[in-house]
Amino acid sequence: MRQQLIHLREKMAAAGVDIYIIPTDDFHGSEYCGGYFGCREFISGFDGSAGTLGITQDWAGLWTDGRYFLQAADQLSGSGIDLMKMGEPEVPTIHQWVKDTLTADMVLGFDGRTMTSGTGEELEKIALSKGASVSHALDLVGEIWEDRPPMSQAPAWELDEKYVGRSRADKLAALRTDVRNQGADVHILTSLGDICWLLNIRGDDVACCPVVLSFVLLDETGCWLYTDEKKFSPELRQHLEADGIGFRPYLDIYEDVKSIAPGTAVLIDPAKLSFSILKNMDPSVKLISGRNPTELPKAIKTKTECDNMRIAHIKDGAALTRFMKWLKETVGGETVTEISAAEKLETFRQQQEHYFGPSFAPIIGYGPHGAIIHYSATPETDVPMKPEGLVLCDTGGHYQEGTTDVTRTFVLGPLTDEMKYYYTLVLKSHLQLGAAVFKKGCTGLNLDYIARKPFWDLGLDYNHGTGHGVGYLLSVHEGPQNIRYGSRGGAAAMEVGMISSNEPGFYLAGKFGIRLENLILCEERMVNQYGTFYGFETLTLCPFELEAIVPEMLSQEEIKLLNDYHAKVYETLSPMFNEEERQWLKNATRAI
Amino acid sequence: MRQQLIHLREKMAAAGVDIYIIPTDDFHGSEYCGGYFGCREFISGFDGSAGTLGITQDWAGLWTDGRYFLQAADQLSGSGIDLMKMGEPEVPTIHQWVKDTLTADMVLGFDGRTMTSGTGEELEKIALSKGASVSHALDLVGEIWEDRPPMSQAPAWELDEKYVGRSRADKLAALRTDVRNQGADVHILTSLGDICWLLNIRGDDVACCPVVLSFVLLDETGCWLYTDEKKFSPELRQHLEADGIGFRPYLDIYEDVKSIAPGTAVLIDPAKLSFSILKNMDPSVKLISGRNPTELPKAIKTKTECDNMRIAHIKDGAALTRFMKWLKETVGGETVTEISAAEKLETFRQQQEHYFGPSFAPIIGYGPHGAIIHYSATPETDVPMKPEGLVLCDTGGHYQEGTTDVTRTFVLGPLTDEMKYYYTLVLKSHLQLGAAVFKKGCTGLNLDYIARKPFWDLGLDYNHGTGHGVGYLLSVHEGPQNIRYGSRGGAAAMEVGMISSNEPGFYLAGKFGIRLENLILCEERMVNQYGTFYGFETLTLCPFELEAIVPEMLSQEEIKLLNDYHAKVYETLSPMFNEEERQWLKNATRAI
Repeated sequence: MRQQLIHLREKMAAAGVDIYIIPTDDFHGSEYCGGYFGCREFISGFDGSAGTLGITQDWAGLWTDGRYFLQAADQLSGSGIDLMKMGEPEVPTIHQWVKDTLTADMVLGFDGRTMTSGTGEELEKIALSKGASVSHALDLVGEIWEDRPPMSQAPAWELDEKYVGRSRADKLAALRTDVRNQGADVHILTSLGDICWLLNIRGDDVACCPVVLSFVLLDETGCWLYTDEKKFSPELRQHLEADGIGFRPYLDIYEDVKSIAPGTAVLIDPAKLSFSILKNMDPSVKLISGRNPTELPKAIKTKTECDNMRIAHIKDGAALTRFMKWLKETVGGETVTEISAAEKLETFRQQQEHYFGPSFAPIIGYGPHGAIIHYSATPETDVPMKPEGLVLCDTGGHYQEGTTDVTRTFVLGPLTDEMKYYYTLVLKSHLQLGAAVFKKGCTGLNLDYIARKPFWDLGLDYNHGTGHGVGYLLSVHEGPQNIRYGSRGGAAAMEVGMISSNEPGFYLAGKFGIRLENLILCEERMVNQYGTFYGFETLTLCPFELEAIVPEMLSQEEIKLLNDYHAKVYETLSPMFNEEERQWLKNATRAI
Repeated sequence: MRQQLIHLREKMAAAGVDIYIIPTDDFHGSEYCGGYFGCREFISGFDGSAGTLGITQDWAGLWTDGRYFLQAADQLSGSGIDLMKMGEPEVPTIHQWVKDTLTADMVLGFDGRTMTSGTGEELEKIALSKGASVSHALDLVGEIWEDRPPMSQAPAWELDEKYVGRSRADKLAALRTDVRNQGADVHILTSLGDICWLLNIRGDDVACCPVVLSFVLLDETGCWLYTDEKKFSPELRQHLEADGIGFRPYLDIYEDVKSIAPGTAVLIDPAKLSFSILKNMDPSVKLISGRNPTELPKAIKTKTECDNMRIAHIKDGAALTRFMKWLKETVGGETVTEISAAEKLETFRQQQEHYFGPSFAPIIGYGPHGAIIHYSATPETDVPMKPEGLVLCDTGGHYQEGTTDVTRTFVLGPLTDEMKYYYTLVLKSHLQLGAAVFKKGCTGLNLDYIARKPFWDLGLDYNHGTGHGVGYLLSVHEGPQNIRYGSRGGAAAMEVGMISSNEPGFYLAGKFGIRLENLILCEERMVNQYGTFYGFETLTLCPFELEAIVPEMLSQEEIKLLNDYHAKVYETLSPMFNEEERQWLKNATRAI
C-alpha cells in the first residue's frame, strides 16, 4: 500500500472526513495541469490525463476511462487502490458509489476549487439526501505533500495588438455590454483561455497552453485580475492598470466572492466555475448561468489573427514537411522510434522564428499504435519504425502568430492494399469536408455528415469528433463550435473567422490507424438572393501521401481538390526550401 | 365597412372589451379547421389558412404572412380592416400593436380556447405590464353569428387493430407509465392526432384529417374522453368503455379542469394546450411541461402500420401514375386547368379501394404558378395548361391503410434547357437523400445537408424544409422528426419506423417550380462493430420524368438509384394496369 494513501487517511480521520474525492482538475478546469495540481497522481501513482480517486478508511478506487485501463492497472498495482473501469457494465459511477457508501451524519470531503460547480452540486445533493454533509474547503493532500512542486512562476507577457487586432479596452467594453444585456451586475471569469484572450496577455503556467493562472472579477466600472503579480513586469502592469485592471492576490478570489453584495446578479458559466467559488458566494446572489460571453468572440478570429494564423501555418508546414522528408528518408537506415521522431519534429519546429513549443503532447503511433486514438508513446511502449507501413503523426505548435494542429499519416515503405484503400477513404472524407459550401446558420452538426458519408455508406465509422475549434495562441481545443453528430454536436453556428480542425480517420485495431487533419478557416463565399454562403479556407500546408492513394477511388472533383491543394503547398513552401528539398517537394505534390 | 365588424364592436362595448383578438385556430390547434371555427373569416371575409384579427372601436387590422398579401388585400377591400403584412419592416407584430394600444384599466379580450397557452401568456404579460386586464372566456363572434355552421357531427369509427398493430389498452398502459415517469399525476391531451392515435379511433371532423373533436384527461386509473358521444356507435362506446374510457360532454373539459385538486402534478404540452384550459386550472397545480408523450410512439409506426403504408402507396401510386399518363396525353387536346386536373386526379384516387379523401388541399401549379410554394388554385387564378413546360403537382390521400403525400413535376411538352438543368438538380438532391446511410442517433438536422449539397455547391437554395413526418391516417404533417437545417431543424433522432417526406425543390419566380417528393421509411440497415446504421425505404411509387433529366449531370451511382427505383415502380404497378398502360409505364420507367 502506498504511504501517501496511509497518510491521507490519517488526515481524513483528523478532519472527520469519511469519503474523500480527488479529481484531476486545477482551479480552472484546464486541459493540462501544472505539477502543483497533481494531487490525484501523488496519492495514486497513476499519471494518465483523466481519473478521479474516491477514498474511505477501508477502500480506495480510481475511476478512469478505456484509454487508460492498461496503464492504470499497471500503475495502481500494489497501491491499495482498485481500478474502477468507467463504462464497464458492473462498475458503478463514482456518483453511485458515493450514494451507496454515504450514510447519515457522514462527511463527504473534497477540494471544491478543483471541482466544477455542477459536479459539486450533484455530490452535495446526494449527501443531503442521505443526511450527510459536504466539506469542500479541504486540501488534505496539500497537508501531506512535502515536496509539492510550487505553482508556476513563469512570467506573463503582453500579446501585442498587432498580433490580435483588437485592443483590451475594446474587448472589456464589449464584455461589459454583454454582461449588462444579460441582466448581470458582476461577471466572474475563471477559464484561463478566456481571461488571456480578454486581456491580451499570455504566460507559461500550463503545459502546452500559454496562459497565466488567474481569475477575473468584473463589474460595470471595475475589473480585478487575481494572479501572482510578480509574474507581471512593471511595464505590463502599467498597461493593464491603464485599462482599468486592478491586481489582487491569486487565491484571494475565494474570499473576495464572499463579499459580493446580497442580491447582486452574477453571470457565471456553470461548466467552468468551481464549486468553491459558487459556495462562497452569498446564497441570495442571483446567478445568471450561461456560456462565458467571451467564448464566441474568442472563437471568431479577427482579420489580424487570421492573417497571422496563415503565417504560423507556413512556418509549421515547412517544419512538418521537412520532417516528412527526413522521416521517409531515414527510417530503415538510422534507428527512429516514435519518441525520437517526436523529438526530431520538435527540432524542425524550433528552427522556425517565434516558435514557443508544442500545442499538445505529440501523438506519433507506428503500425498498430496508430489505431490507438489517444496514443502517447512512453519509454515502455516506444518502438523503432520499420521501412514499411504507416505512421500516424498528430502534433501541433504555438507560434507568436498562432497555433497549429495537424495530422498526417506517413508512408514508410510498402503498403498493403487495405492500407491504401482506407487511406484514400479518409482522404475523400477530408477533402469533401474541406470543400463544403453551406448556408449561414449551419452548425457543425449539419456538416459532420459530409465527412462521415464515405464511411457510413460502407457501414464503417470513426469513434471521435470530426472537428474542434482551435485557439489563437491559447488552447488547441476550444469552443463553442465543433463538427460532430449526436448529442454532443453543433452547439454553435459556424461563423466567418472561426478556425476548426477537419480530422476524419479510420482505425483497424492491431493493424494501423489513419487520420488526416488540416485546420480550416470559415470564410464567406457569396451573398445572393438565396442567402449567405460560407466555405472553408484550408490553413495547414503539408503534402498528403500520393503513394497511399488509389486514384480510381477518387472522383474527378476530389482529384482536382487534391491537386489544387498540392499546388498550393508547393507554391507556398518551396521558397523556404533549398534546391534538393524543392525537388523532393515537387515530386511529393505532383498532380495525379 | 362589413356589418359583422360593426356588430362585433357593439358586443365589445357591451362586454367592456377594448381590444379583441381573433386567431384562426380551432380548440385543438388543428392544421385545418371546421366551418364552426371560422370566426376570423366570418368577421373579415379573408379565407386564407393563416391570419389574426386585432380590433378596437376605431381600428381593425388583419395580420397575415407573405403567402396571402395579394389575396388578403383583395378580400379585405372595403371591409374597414387594414392589412398588416407580417415581416415587412414598418409593420409591428400583433404583440407590439397590443403593447402600443393598451393603456391602464383597458380590457384585452379573446376566446382563450382558440389560443395556445404560450401566446395567451405573452399577451397577458403585456396586459399586466400596462395595468390592463385580460378576459379570455369570450366568444363574442358566436354571439352575433346567426347562421354559424354547427360543429361537425361526423361519426367516429374504430381503426381495427389489424390496421395499427397495437391495442388501445397497450397504448394506454404505456402512456400511464410515461406520465408516471415524468412525475405527473394527470395528463391532459388536446391535440386530435394524439387522441385518435391513443384510442385507435378516427372520424371526419376536420378537413383533410380524419380525427374526432375531443379532449382526453387521464390519470393513474381513469381516462375521460370529452367528445360528442352521439358520434359513437353503441358498439364503439362499448369497446372504449371496456378499456376504461369514460365519456364526458365535449366542452365540459373547460369546467372539469377547474376541479383538478390543488397541488396535482399535470403533464401538458404547452405548444398544444389552449390558454383557457391553462387558466381554468387551480393556480397551485404543478405543471410539468413537455412534448406530448404520445408524439414519439405515434411517429414510430408499428410493423403493421408500415405494411399497410406500403399497400396505401401502391394504390396511390397507381392513381397518380394513371393521372400522369392522362395529363400528358390530354393537355393540348381537351382543356385542362389546374382545378380540373386536381378534380381528375381525385377521381383516379377514388377508384382505389378504401380511399377516404385528400390528405391536404392539392397544390397543382402550372408554369409560373409552380414557383409559388403554397399555391392553391382558385377560380380567379386557375389557368389552362399548354402542351409545354412543367406543372408541379403536390397532393396526397388518406386510405384505410395509411396516408400519402407525393409531389411530381410533370412534363407537358417542350422544355427549356434551364428547366431540364434544374429538374435534374432537384432529382440529384432527392436521390441522394433517399439513399442516405447514417448512424443511429442522427437527426434530420444531420441529414438535411445531403439534400442541400447540390444546391449549396452552386450558391442556390430552396426556401422550405426538406422533410416532415407523416401520420398514419392522421395529419399529413406530424412531428417530432423533420429534415431541416437551422434553428427549426432536428428536434428528434430518426428512429426505425418513422415515415418522413423527402421533398427538395427549386423555384424560379415568374418562370416555373420543381419539387420531387417521396415518402421514406426509416429502416435498420446493419449492426456491426462500428454501430447501428439506418437507411430509408422509399414508399412512394410514381415515375420521374425521363424527358426532363440531363443524364450527364447524374453520377453513375445516381443513375443506378434512378433505374432501380423505376424498375421497382414498374414491377409493383404494372400488375394493376391494362396492357396499354403497361406499355406506357414500361417506356416511362425504362433504364437510362
